[in-house]
This record gives sequence, C-alpha cells and structure tokens, in this order.
Amino acid sequence: MTYSVRFLPYNVSVKVDDNTSLIRAAMDAGVHINASCGGEGVCGKCRVLIEKGNVEGGVSEKLSVEDREKGYRLACLSEVNSDLVVRIPVESEIDTSRLNVQAGSRHTAQVLYADIDELRQDGLFIPPVEKIYLELPPATAEDNQSDVTRIINHLCFKHDEHHLTMGLDLIRKTPEIIRQGEFKITVTIVRPVRKDGKNEIVNIEPFDTSDRNFAIAVDIGTTTVYGQALDLHTGKVLSEHGEFNPQISYGEDVISRIMFAEKGDGLEILHQKIIEIINKIIDRIVKKAGIGQHEVTTITLAGNTTMTQLLLKINPSYIRRDPYVPASSVYPPFHSSQIGIDLADHTIALIYPGVSSYVGGDIIAGIMASGMYRSSELTLYMDIGTNAEIVIGHKDWMVCTAASAGPAFEGGGVKFGMRATKGAIEDFSINPLTYEPMIITVENKKAKGICGSGMITIAAKLLETGVIDSRGKFNQSLDTPRIRKTDDIWEYVLVYKENTQIDRDITITEPDLDNLIRAKGAMYSAALTLLEEIGMKISDIERVILAGGFGSYVELQSAITIGLLPEIDPSKVTYLGNGSLLGCKINSLTNALRRDVAKVVNMMTNFELAATHSYMDHYMGALFLPHTQLDYFPKVKARLEKLRK
Amino acid sequence: MTYSVRFLPYNVSVKVDDNTSLIRAAMDAGVHINASCGGEGVCGKCRVLIEKGNVEGGVSEKLSVEDREKGYRLACLSEVNSDLVVRIPVESEIDTSRLNVQAGSRHTAQVLYADIDELRQDGLFIPPVEKIYLELPPATAEDNQSDVTRIINHLCFKHDEHHLTMGLDLIRKTPEIIRQGEFKITVTIVRPVRKDGKNEIVNIEPFDTSDRNFAIAVDIGTTTVYGQALDLHTGKVLSEHGEFNPQISYGEDVISRIMFAEKGDGLEILHQKIIEIINKIIDRIVKKAGIGQHEVTTITLAGNTTMTQLLLKINPSYIRRDPYVPASSVYPPFHSSQIGIDLADHTIALIYPGVSSYVGGDIIAGIMASGMYRSSELTLYMDIGTNAEIVIGHKDWMVCTAASAGPAFEGGGVKFGMRATKGAIEDFSINPLTYEPMIITVENKKAKGICGSGMITIAAKLLETGVIDSRGKFNQSLDTPRIRKTDDIWEYVLVYKENTQIDRDITITEPDLDNLIRAKGAMYSAALTLLEEIGMKISDIERVILAGGFGSYVELQSAITIGLLPEIDPSKVTYLGNGSLLGCKINSLTNALRRDVAKVVNMMTNFELAATHSYMDHYMGALFLPHTQLDYFPKVKARLEKLRK
Repeated sequence: MTYSVRFLPYNVSVKVDDNTSLIRAAMDAGVHINASCGGEGVCGKCRVLIEKGNVEGGVSEKLSVEDREKGYRLACLSEVNSDLVVRIPVESEIDTSRLNVQAGSRHTAQVLYADIDELRQDGLFIPPVEKIYLELPPATAEDNQSDVTRIINHLCFKHDEHHLTMGLDLIRKTPEIIRQGEFKITVTIVRPVRKDGKNEIVNIEPFDTSDRNFAIAVDIGTTTVYGQALDLHTGKVLSEHGEFNPQISYGEDVISRIMFAEKGDGLEILHQKIIEIINKIIDRIVKKAGIGQHEVTTITLAGNTTMTQLLLKINPSYIRRDPYVPASSVYPPFHSSQIGIDLADHTIALIYPGVSSYVGGDIIAGIMASGMYRSSELTLYMDIGTNAEIVIGHKDWMVCTAASAGPAFEGGGVKFGMRATKGAIEDFSINPLTYEPMIITVENKKAKGICGSGMITIAAKLLETGVIDSRGKFNQSLDTPRIRKTDDIWEYVLVYKENTQIDRDITITEPDLDNLIRAKGAMYSAALTLLEEIGMKISDIERVILAGGFGSYVELQSAITIGLLPEIDPSKVTYLGNGSLLGCKINSLTNALRRDVAKVVNMMTNFELAATHSYMDHYMGALFLPHTQLDYFPKVKARLEKLRK
Repeated sequence: MTYSVRFLPYNVSVKVDDNTSLIRAAMDAGVHINASCGGEGVCGKCRVLIEKGNVEGGVSEKLSVEDREKGYRLACLSEVNSDLVVRIPVESEIDTSRLNVQAGSRHTAQVLYADIDELRQDGLFIPPVEKIYLELPPATAEDNQSDVTRIINHLCFKHDEHHLTMGLDLIRKTPEIIRQGEFKITVTIVRPVRKDGKNEIVNIEPFDTSDRNFAIAVDIGTTTVYGQALDLHTGKVLSEHGEFNPQISYGEDVISRIMFAEKGDGLEILHQKIIEIINKIIDRIVKKAGIGQHEVTTITLAGNTTMTQLLLKINPSYIRRDPYVPASSVYPPFHSSQIGIDLADHTIALIYPGVSSYVGGDIIAGIMASGMYRSSELTLYMDIGTNAEIVIGHKDWMVCTAASAGPAFEGGGVKFGMRATKGAIEDFSINPLTYEPMIITVENKKAKGICGSGMITIAAKLLETGVIDSRGKFNQSLDTPRIRKTDDIWEYVLVYKENTQIDRDITITEPDLDNLIRAKGAMYSAALTLLEEIGMKISDIERVILAGGFGSYVELQSAITIGLLPEIDPSKVTYLGNGSLLGCKINSLTNALRRDVAKVVNMMTNFELAATHSYMDHYMGALFLPHTQLDYFPKVKARLEKLRK
C-alpha cells in the first residue's frame, strides 16, 4: 500500500509505502526538516503539523500539550498510514525554491532472471543439482544387472539422462538404499557445465524426496559474509543471514590478511575462521527455513580472489606480489565437506570463478546477476568498497580493473566512520541558510557514527551549500557554530553529544573529506583509465550498475555530485545491491548460467592500473569535488552555480 | 639356443631349449622313462645312456662306477647342452609304438597387443595417464593470468589438449611448484574414456620428469594376488611379484568370504587384508624396479566381483543372494589413496568393470587381453579355477556364465592336492605294461603333492592305459602293487614315501578322481549350456582360449581326453596365462582399450546357469571321462580304443 504525502509550504509531493517514517518521506521528497538526533525523538526538532490525514505515533513529551492538540507531531516518530498534507514550520525567511531541490530518486535493483517463472518459460530453470524420483523394476533372476547399472539404465531410457557417473562412496551405499526404498529411490544429479559433459549422481535416497531440494548461496566479503537458503522448486529465498567476516581480527583488508596467511599457520587460521562463520550462517538459515542440512544439494560461494583462496586454503601470497598472479581463476565443483563445510557429504560446492588477483568471483557473480553480459548497451559496472572493481563492456567484450579506494566508503579512515548498522547516519540534508542538519540513521536509532553512503550525501550537501569547497575545505566564514576548529582540525558538527549514543559530538572533519575524495578519485579515475585503454570516452557509457553492500544505499545524485559516478541520467543507473550474493542465488537456480559464466570469464580482459601510463594523472585530476575538469560534469557544474547564486 | 634330442629305441626326436632337463625333454617327446621321485635324483630309476653328445650333470651315486664310465646318466639330473642321442634302457618287452603316443604340444600364450611397437604404429600407445613437459612463459605485468589458467592455456594452444580440469588439492600446490620449477613443469594428465570427456590434470612436478612414468597392474585372485610394475615409455614389465591372498584365513572361497564380510566388521577386515597385501606387493615391485612410489601414475586392478567389492569396501552380501546382484559393474577412476593404497595422492586407480556377480573384472580383463572381442572367429574363453567363468562369442556378440567347479583344479578336495609350487607333481606318464610312473615336479624337487594340471594329466594317462575306467574307478585286476586299497579306498601310488618330501606315499584316490570329474563336468556342461541357450553347438567353436593361473600349465591333450575341453585342433587352443593380470597391463599402456572395455561390458549377455532348463542334465551327462556322449569326443574315443586294443 502506498500513500501520497504533500509537504507545505514547498508544495512537494511524494509517494511512500505505508509505515514509512515521515522524516524519510521528507528526505525522499527532498524537503529539509531540522532533525539532529537520527530519529528517536530525542532532539525534538522535527516538529511538523499534520494538516490532512492521520499518522501513527509521532506524539512525544518534547511537544507541548497545545501543539499536540493542534496536530503537531515529531516527523521522526510518525509513520505514514494515509494520504497526508504536512506543513513544515518555517522559522525564518527562507527561499523555498532553494530548499526544494529534488534529489535524484532512489533506484531499486532491476535484477535480470529474478523472475523464476520467466526462467521456467525459457526452459532455463534447471538447477545445477537436480533430484529425480525413480521407480525401478526390482531385480529378478532374468534381470539381475548391478544396482548401479539399473539406476543408470533407468535414467537413460526413462528419463533421457546420459553420461552418468557415480563416485565410489555412493556406490558403497547404493545396495542398501535401493533395498531400503524397495527399488523406489530419488537420485540427486549434478549437471555439467558443458552440455555433453558428465552428469554425476551424488546421492541416492529411499523413496520420493524430490520435492526437498534446497540450495545455499554465500557471498564472502572482506568485511561481511551473507548467506541465503533457497528452495530449488519455487526459486524463493527461504531465509538469510549475515555476519561479519571474523578474519577481520587478523587484518582489515586483503593485503594484511595475505600477510597474515604467509606466516606460520596463518593460512590455516584464516581458512578455519571463514569456514566457521559460514557454518554458523548455514546453521542459522537452514533452521530458519525449516530444512535439514542433508536436504541442501548445492552451495554456491563467491568472494574476491583473496577471500576465495583463503576459503579454499590456497596460499594467497602471489596475489599481493608483482605481477599479481592468482592460483587459479576457475575451480572445479567439489564436495563441500572437503573444505569442512557443515553440510552433507553429497552437497556440491560451486565456486564463482574470477578473472585476476583483484577482479574476483564476487565481481563475476555480480556481472552474471546484472545481466550486462547479455546486453548490447555499453555498461559500467562498479563494485564500490575498499577495493573497487570496475567492469566496462557488453555482450561482445568486457574489460575490468580494480583500484584500491581505501576504506572511506566502509567507514574506515573517517573519524566517526562506521559500517551501515543501527545508528549510522545514512542520509543527510542541510538548511542552506541556517546550516542546520537533517539526519537520518539506520533503523532510526540515536546517531552513533557515519556510514559510507552517509559520507557521500554529507559531502555532496556540504558542497552544494558551499559549506565546503571543491577541495573539501570548510568555508570558515559561515555563520554557524556547527563549523568549528577542534585540535587544529576544521569540522562540521552533525549531531551534538546529548543526541548521540556515544556522548560525543559527531562531526565530519577535513581529513575525513580528504579520504573520501581520494576514494572516489581512485574509482572515477580507474573507470576513466579503463575507457582510455580501450579508446572510449566516459560519455560513451550508456548504463551504470552499482554493486556492493555499500552500493545499494548510496544516494545517486550525491554520488554524481562528488564525482564518484560519471554524470549520467539517473534512470540509467541500476542498484544491484549485493551482486555477489545475487549471482550465487541465480547460479543455484539455473545451470544455463554456469555455461555463460565460463564465457564471461573468457571474454573478460583484465588491466592492471599500475601498468597503464595514465592512471596516476587521472587520479590526480580526480582529487577534486566533483573533478578538476568540470567538463566531465556539466550538470553538476550548472547545479552548483545555481545553488550558490 | 635349442638342441635336438633323439630318444632310442623309439627313434623320437624333440627340440628343447638349452639347460632343459633330459626328463622334461622325454616328457615333451612323449617318451616314458620310469621316474618316481620328481627329479632330484633320489629314486635313481631314470637311468639313460648318452650315446651321442654331452650333458651337464646327471652323475649320481645311484649309478655304478661302471655305468658312469659307459655313459649312463640320471635323466632328471642331466641338462641338455648339445644335440643328443639318448637310449632308454628297456627292461622288458615293450610295444614301443604304444609308448610313443605323442602328447599334444604345449602352446604358449599368443598375446595380442603384447608388441608395444605395434601399439605405437597404430597410434594406440597412449597410456590412460600421461606426463607432458611444459616450458611456460613466466608471468609478467602484461600477462598475469592465473597459474592454473597459464598451464591450461599452454596445454591447449601448444599441445592441443582440451577439456582440462584440475582438482582442488592440486590447485593448492600449483603456485609453489610452478615457481619452484621456474615455470618449467611436468604435468600428469588422466585421459578420459570418452574422446570428448575431461582430461584431468592430477599432478604437477617442477622441471622435466616426463621420462619417469610408471604403472602398476594388479590381479586380485581369490587365492593369489599378482602385481607388475610397468614402464609406460617402453611398455616393459620392470618387475613382478605374487603373494597369497591373505583373506584366505577368513574363507577359502568367495561365498565364505561374503559370509564373513556380513558379520560385524568383517567387511572392514577383508578390505584391510587385501589392501595390506597389495601394498606389500607394490613395495616389493617398485623397489625391484628401482622406481619411486610417487612416480607411479596409475594402478589398474582386476578381480572377480567379490574380490572387487571387498577391495573397494562395498558390501558383497547381495552377490550370494538370489537374484545375485552386484553393487556395480563399472567403477569410476579414483585416487588410489582413497582406498588406502600406498601410492602418491595423485596416483589414479582404474578398476576393471565386471558383468555380473560371477563374471567379474578379471574375466573382462582376460577378454581384453585375449583380443577375442576383435576377432571374427567364434571363441570359447575359459577361466579355469574354483569358479570357472566361460565366455563365448566374437566381435559382434558375447555371452558369459560362471559355474562352480569346486576346488579340485586348485588342489582342493584332493588327498594330496596342492598348489603349483615346488615339489607339486605337474606332469606324469605311465608305462602301459608295468604301470610304473614317470613323475615331473615343479622345479624338479622331491614330490610333495599333486597340482591341478598334474591331476588332469594323471587322470588322462590312467584312463588311456585302462588303469581307471570312464567313471574314474580303478581296474582292480591289474598286476601292479601301485594299485591298492587303503582304508577301504582304492588308489594308485604315484611316489613311494622314501622318494617324497613328506614321508608318506603320495597317491591318487577314487574320491580325488570323483572331485576332478565333477569339476571338469561343471565346466564342460556350462559351455554346452551356454551354447545351447544361443542355439549353437560345441562343434561351432573355432577357437579356445584358456586363462587362469591354472590354465597356463594344463596339458592340452590330457584336458581334452578327460572331457574338460571340447575336442578341437590343439593349434586352435591358446594359453593366455593370467589373463586378468595381462588385461591390467594392457589397460595401463593404451587408453584406446578403455573405450573398448566399455563396449565389451555392454555387449556381454550374462546367463545364470541355475535359471536355464538344461544345465543339470548336461552336468549329469558330463560326469564321465570324457563324457557319456562319446559323439562329442570322436577322436578321444578312437584314441582310447586304439590304446586299449
């Protein structure tokens, strides 16, 4: 159910889902409401008048009895439950036209292949691991072929299945199971990537269990690990769960983890840590989904090259050493128990292949999930994180590279930086006259810090209102106590300590902005360099796909404003969310995809930025907001000029 | 070097290899010399006069000084070293024409594919596991593909190798090995059976080790286990060794072993026992051959269905239960370490597929070694042992069955029965007038007992000379102390105790002959039944191939005389020896064979004798020497009539 909310005096309307908080509705509408605490009703500043319609909640002791009776509510505590007209009290003479600069609408993921029925129609909904129920003719004196031959012949003649094999362990179990099921059995078959490859029978169960076929998808991020349990009949996600990657204790980034792996039993430790957390996630999601561990027939895992090698206990040392060579880009399917994953012996593990030391399986998974390999539009795929991976291309060719963006996008190198968890400032607006902020935090909890997407929006808004200049330096002459110098460092106070969880003023500092500029500069210049290497321009890009846990939160216009993304029609930008996890999910559902994966990996050309002539020049040029060359950003240029007029 | 030996007064010549003992030369010539001890010069009866030429040895205190000076020697101690004329003292008036009934010449194995050069010419000398030396271009900034990709691409573009895969364990080792070898490496590739199947890279070694590629072939018999080490470059057998199957302690035959396997940890024990002895054999043959265990790239094993299932630790219970269903007939290649074989982790084990519970991989191996699957002649393949397997057919079709012959052919159920080891009576002749024997033992040692082939020859000669009748009963009226009744059982004394190793008279008894008749009856009637099932006659058989450890010793004419083999031109009978071991050897040398194996297993139709109508009738009819229906054996009939005239 969606409702319309009209904000006065700006006369701006927005459509929102029911139970959206009024302050988020305002943010979506691009309407500023002073709100300093993040949304728990603590600061009491976000007072609005409900002129038409009703909201759920919004009443607080911060409001006088009189105000309450008049219909005032706190926007952060009010949930939309009907069409509304809401008036925002204007405390001073404000140019409403200046306040009302509509932000780029948020895009939700347009995921190809997400529609299972479409897959079914195309005949592509054939999971890599299938279950087939067989009613075998029982053995007699006239027909006493071996148990395994009986199964294989039946599959061949009755189910048109060919090139079948069975491993020794399963052959050992077959005679008992076939008799336990009175010659009625369910076989689990792993499909090959090549059409004429071998179909491996990996499990046999007595009687009909063909409706119990489940998969697990796991994205192994440097920071977080996510798992999903999938029903292979409906294609639906039954449950999901995420945890921090416990390897963090041994190194924040991939390089420090590789260095740890090089020492003593470091590799073993990091391998064990990731397996343990995967097992914890599996345990959680199978219980939530109400399925047995033995009913999971396949697990698909994707991660960057280092995460993949640590998962598989492969020495990652050469990844960090010139010329940066990974052990392998493709891995064979194997039994997940082989690496200690706590699933049945027959559960098959499928690992997403990678391209290079810094363009790994997570990116390929994202490319597959995005469908860009089937599109004819020239697409820029960006996975934003500490290590930023960039892929450019379409169905005929693809090039890729990776840049070290630094940890700013993930809350690192930022004084009050944090991951996008409860209380992280994720959205921001600023009153261009009073410079008072509007803060929205994750789950509307009292503010605790700033997450990556918050950083981008804050920087963009500060730039738009002239609080900072294109080098990220504060305008020291503005008349607000929020801009101040502490310990010789200029900063802007986002939330005063009484409204925080941490009992300290939460600020954004010039060094924070410096780190952010370097991070976005690395990404943008990587894209520019890649385009230059293949003789194309940034304006040739027809479509942008953003991925990464971070990418799904980023406010698009802000990202363009600071020069992280190229200037492109926002409708041409797609958020993919966790592309790696999505790729794993799709891989679990359709075996056709696995053939495409091999094609994509083969067509992908990797560039090492360090080996190009222009990367450093492009990088230096990108260390401005949005860029030294404003020609790349004509609309941002015009907008900034208009806002500051 | 061969020499001609002429025996007087019979004027029979024979060609023999140098160092052949004179008594064996006489046996080959079909000339009888009284010789009662087996050949160690103990009895002193085999006194012969060297009339021309010289022998090595032959002098004994059993000869008088005078005799020695005249040129008398003991035949059993004399070795042929020149062309000879030898006179055998005739002690009584003997019809020399009757003594001189030439025995069928022994045939040696005509092994197809034994000529490696021929395999090479046909382009078939491609072992299932090959080693290829690669000089890879080292990784650079411009070419930093993954280590595994580098290897696979190089194999693809420089060596035309396709569909390559590599397992996780090997991927783990690759980065170190490739650098240890400075990008010069040797890869070990396992070939698929299907031409378009996957080539698995199973090992990588630094630098060039491609000339060190060895295989092991193992025949797992119910009684004995044989192994050979092979050089995959020359195709030569480097060493071989045999041991008794230690499972014997848990049951003499397959049925009693299956019963043992059904109890408690019986299966585990029998599995461990066979693995232990295989490991012992491997240790012995690799040391003898001067190769390292890690240089063995493949081990091929064949055994009957029960031996195969015990080897692989697969419950054999259903093999002995109606309707006699084995777990599998085909097994996938696997790493030999998976079943505890003491070779490198990368060594691939190949198991010969079988057809049914009683026609196993040893038979298929023999069929492959014999080449009968490529011949257009209708061939009868017999593997003679406790369990007798029979295959009839040619390149277009094959049928098979198995019969329980009982242990008589292997020395069981025979009073002085023993295996064909030192001191076993393996050849025999009898003076038709005096009924004095001529005994030849294995390795010319003092007699200890009778082996299977000895039994056949003894029975045939006793029949020919009328010492026994067609029911295997002694002619009690003959005038010789060697035929006697002991403890109510009639017997013939082969060796008196003073000339034995065991200090007891060695005899052959009526119950011994009874067991032999039942064993040969089972085999012959099995062949007859099989032929009848497919609408053919025994006279349609164009060729006979004998296999089995036993088969290689059997005296052909004797086997026909007692009705074990059908009456056929002896030149059409081939001895294959240990067909199972030979099949394993050939499998190690040419991958082309593995494709044929699959074809052979698929074209083979198995018959269960118990399920036929006629087997019992045929069996009853075969319980005579040679048979109740003498029409099946017209030449034997004529011969017996002539001899007894």
